[in-house]
Amino acid sequence: MSLSPYWLRDNCPCVECRDPRNGQKLFRVGDLPDGLAVAESVEDGDALAVLWSDGHRSRYPLAWLAGTDEGDGRTEDGKRLWTAADFGPGLPAADWSAYLGDERERAAVLAAVRRSGFALLRGVPAVERQVLEVARSFGYVRETNYGELFDVRVEPDPTNLAFTGAAIAPHTDNPYRDPVPTLQLLHCLRSDAIGGDSGLVDGFTAAALLREESPADFAVLTRTPVPFVFRDRRTELRADRPLIDVDGRGRIREVRFNNRSIATLRGLTTAELDAFYAAYRRFAAITLRPELQLTFRLAPGDCLVFDNTRLLHARTAFETGEGHRHLQGCYADLDSLASHHAVLERRTAALDTLEQLFEGEGAGEYLGEAVTLAGHMLQAGALAEAAGAPAHLVAAALLHDVGHFHGSGLRLMQGEDNRHSHTGADWLGRWFGPDVTEPIRLHVAAKRYLCTAEPGYRAKLSEASEYTLQVQGGPMTEEQAAQFAARPGARDAVAVRRWDEQAKDPDLETPPFAHFRPLLAELMA
Amino acid sequence: MSLSPYWLRDNCPCVECRDPRNGQKLFRVGDLPDGLAVAESVEDGDALAVLWSDGHRSRYPLAWLAGTDEGDGRTEDGKRLWTAADFGPGLPAADWSAYLGDERERAAVLAAVRRSGFALLRGVPAVERQVLEVARSFGYVRETNYGELFDVRVEPDPTNLAFTGAAIAPHTDNPYRDPVPTLQLLHCLRSDAIGGDSGLVDGFTAAALLREESPADFAVLTRTPVPFVFRDRRTELRADRPLIDVDGRGRIREVRFNNRSIATLRGLTTAELDAFYAAYRRFAAITLRPELQLTFRLAPGDCLVFDNTRLLHARTAFETGEGHRHLQGCYADLDSLASHHAVLERRTAALDTLEQLFEGEGAGEYLGEAVTLAGHMLQAGALAEAAGAPAHLVAAALLHDVGHFHGSGLRLMQGEDNRHSHTGADWLGRWFGPDVTEPIRLHVAAKRYLCTAEPGYRAKLSEASEYTLQVQGGPMTEEQAAQFAARPGARDAVAVRRWDEQAKDPDLETPPFAHFRPLLAELMA
Repeated sequence: MSLSPYWLRDNCPCVECRDPRNGQKLFRVGDLPDGLAVAESVEDGDALAVLWSDGHRSRYPLAWLAGTDEGDGRTEDGKRLWTAADFGPGLPAADWSAYLGDERERAAVLAAVRRSGFALLRGVPAVERQVLEVARSFGYVRETNYGELFDVRVEPDPTNLAFTGAAIAPHTDNPYRDPVPTLQLLHCLRSDAIGGDSGLVDGFTAAALLREESPADFAVLTRTPVPFVFRDRRTELRADRPLIDVDGRGRIREVRFNNRSIATLRGLTTAELDAFYAAYRRFAAITLRPELQLTFRLAPGDCLVFDNTRLLHARTAFETGEGHRHLQGCYADLDSLASHHAVLERRTAALDTLEQLFEGEGAGEYLGEAVTLAGHMLQAGALAEAAGAPAHLVAAALLHDVGHFHGSGLRLMQGEDNRHSHTGADWLGRWFGPDVTEPIRLHVAAKRYLCTAEPGYRAKLSEASEYTLQVQGGPMTEEQAAQFAARPGARDAVAVRRWDEQAKDPDLETPPFAHFRPLLAELMA
Repeated sequence: MSLSPYWLRDNCPCVECRDPRNGQKLFRVGDLPDGLAVAESVEDGDALAVLWSDGHRSRYPLAWLAGTDEGDGRTEDGKRLWTAADFGPGLPAADWSAYLGDERERAAVLAAVRRSGFALLRGVPAVERQVLEVARSFGYVRETNYGELFDVRVEPDPTNLAFTGAAIAPHTDNPYRDPVPTLQLLHCLRSDAIGGDSGLVDGFTAAALLREESPADFAVLTRTPVPFVFRDRRTELRADRPLIDVDGRGRIREVRFNNRSIATLRGLTTAELDAFYAAYRRFAAITLRPELQLTFRLAPGDCLVFDNTRLLHARTAFETGEGHRHLQGCYADLDSLASHHAVLERRTAALDTLEQLFEGEGAGEYLGEAVTLAGHMLQAGALAEAAGAPAHLVAAALLHDVGHFHGSGLRLMQGEDNRHSHTGADWLGRWFGPDVTEPIRLHVAAKRYLCTAEPGYRAKLSEASEYTLQVQGGPMTEEQAAQFAARPGARDAVAVRRWDEQAKDPDLETPPFAHFRPLLAELMA
């Protein structure tokens, strides 16, 4: 196996090299010595153990070495390129209340924006400024010269031609901004005009068609910076960006298309200008092909969320001066949407992992107790619930011994630390707040505390628990106990400890893990 | 002269092709016919007159045809690349109150951020959240997962190693965001620790050095997408972007540099990984060269504004646990800063143009009146001022006849419109609000109105004014006069009209145009 030494070392997962909580590196690439090489490497169980020429030691899980990667999802590789016919069965859509209440529904909407470039939320209250709430449900509003939000109105007003409802050709917004707003939201408040349907075109599909039909034209558009300009009394924006932006590996990454705001290209020869305009006109013609036009009508309460670096949006003409159409729009960014989506997926995956651990490994013997590990934890959770404990303590009781699991999700995180309360709390800290994790972190200390502070407590310990007490350091001294009692999380830890002690009844019936899942999902959010 | 036909036609400045107010195009590139060609072209005065094969006619000012262009200023072409020695004479800095009160001072600060990548504001009130006001003085705050703003504190707290003040190597922020925040602000609230100086490195200089010393390494870094990742309980951000991003013409455009957040590169061969890491390490070493490190100390009230797509920032170590350092920071974007700067420059240029018109062309004969055009307008302005009129009416009186000027700034805007009140109002509308421009637009109508509505008014008109009354359509009908009086701006227009009538005294002394400049600058803002 030939591995690049600096690449391998830069990825060393040990606690000296990486912050175990956020995974960020604790060294600079320049700190690594010149001529670094692997001195010795050997497969050791499911890891590759490496001794480096500078004496450092690393362990790389074989599964990690074999890993692949999906990228950041922003290029064509991470997208589902579409034509209008792909949405014959219906648009990617969800009801606003389902989106708010059900994390799986929400994840599906965000996944659609990432993969297909758009999604439609229905039943969003048709009130002013609500569009900002939609944006804030997954990210941050990007304020621009148009304000926090903008109004798109067409009204029967024959004195103002700008509002008479001419068709608007497919385009992206704000190409003269850099960074361009990567997401746009349009929320329909009123729509009783005749005409004025919405249109979307997948700009990545159009760019891919251009590359297929005329690679030279595609290349011209990717390498020619185009001056996009917008100017009014308070604004003078300019960005020189290509119509089609590709990444370092040539993959389509962004499309900007807006004839209105292209200013004068300078510094090119006549032949280069001829080539650019030929390519540009060919690309423009592709964006207008009927099979690429996805047309639909926004009804009051609909909110369209779409990728402004990929989709072109359009509006059909109004056929008459009757009726009104009022949209409110705002901008936001894809990175926060993608983050929100990834966190939702991560939470679901974590709950799935926990469920598998409870149902698999957890069903085995538990340190010589009369119950299984899963049974013990489910009992503790159920006892907390029956006692009317707040949700975070039910969760802490339910999960207090996850540090005993050896399953795949945990094993990677254990590192050098074999104290199960800390291991469990650290692992859970990726999803839960300190109100859940700190009672878990302290539940072993709470036992050592109670043995000292509460007469008769130690005598009630099970045989196994008395054994582990010794391993864990025995009862606290009086001074340690006083210090412990003064810690902010001490009372919660003691509560968890008591449910822990009681949760060893071989005959007690408990609900399955699935019963606690909604409570855990709520605490993660 | 060989010109690219589609390029030339796409730039036709006629009112059919372009909105005269915002310069945006009114046609789509696909609307132009195939095989478009110039049928006839002839130099006509200072313009090239073109008859097109489809019958359209265009006129291109020769000065426009000969024009060049500075680009959007975002690549290395628009920058002053620096090393630390370039700031021996001092940093680009301004006092906060001067920055707020003097538009030239403000323009200089913003110009420094655009050209050198940073500027320092001194004397910014050292109070919490003030950094947001600094950002809002030129643009919009970019909210992130760290909030609207973030705190950077170092405090003597030996129990938390993260706050003990280790050195932080030069880096850019938020490389895992796409779009990355293009500007960062750091506002010093407290600084009595020993050590903890600030450092800046010009990443464009470092990248240019790499290109010079090792072009192959430079090329590797520009074409390799690097996965930047940040993960915490609520966040999972990832952006695959090169360390050095170049535009379609190969010019350096953005630098991202942050070893902490580089995750595992996948999908490359061992040789490619070796090449990437060799290039990366060479680039990292360049960023640490002593001659590139600009080091200075932020004092309370200092606010550093810098380009996060170009400059790397750093912090030296703290030598002791004594004392505190507290900065508040936020993110914003370069596009709005550049827009604000361009608008300030445009306003200064407009005031310069007006001053030149008043002092040059305006000093000539005025339609047979006994005063010059400039004298007439200065008298009108002075009369309004003496009457205690609000600023917008003083400006309207002073500028009411700019539509008579034929100077370069105006000529381009006149188009087909020869009604001087409208021409003037439209031109001024690029800088002034309707409170200034609408009385100007209506001041001719106000004369026609007064001739009808006010007995004896017409008899007082000067001979020249009586002549132009006829050209302008004569007195209004009773019905027209009633409609006029009902318009919202009618009263202001009548006021301007009366100062206009009085401002023809050959003996009246007036202040020069410069006297009114601060008032006009204020109204533009």
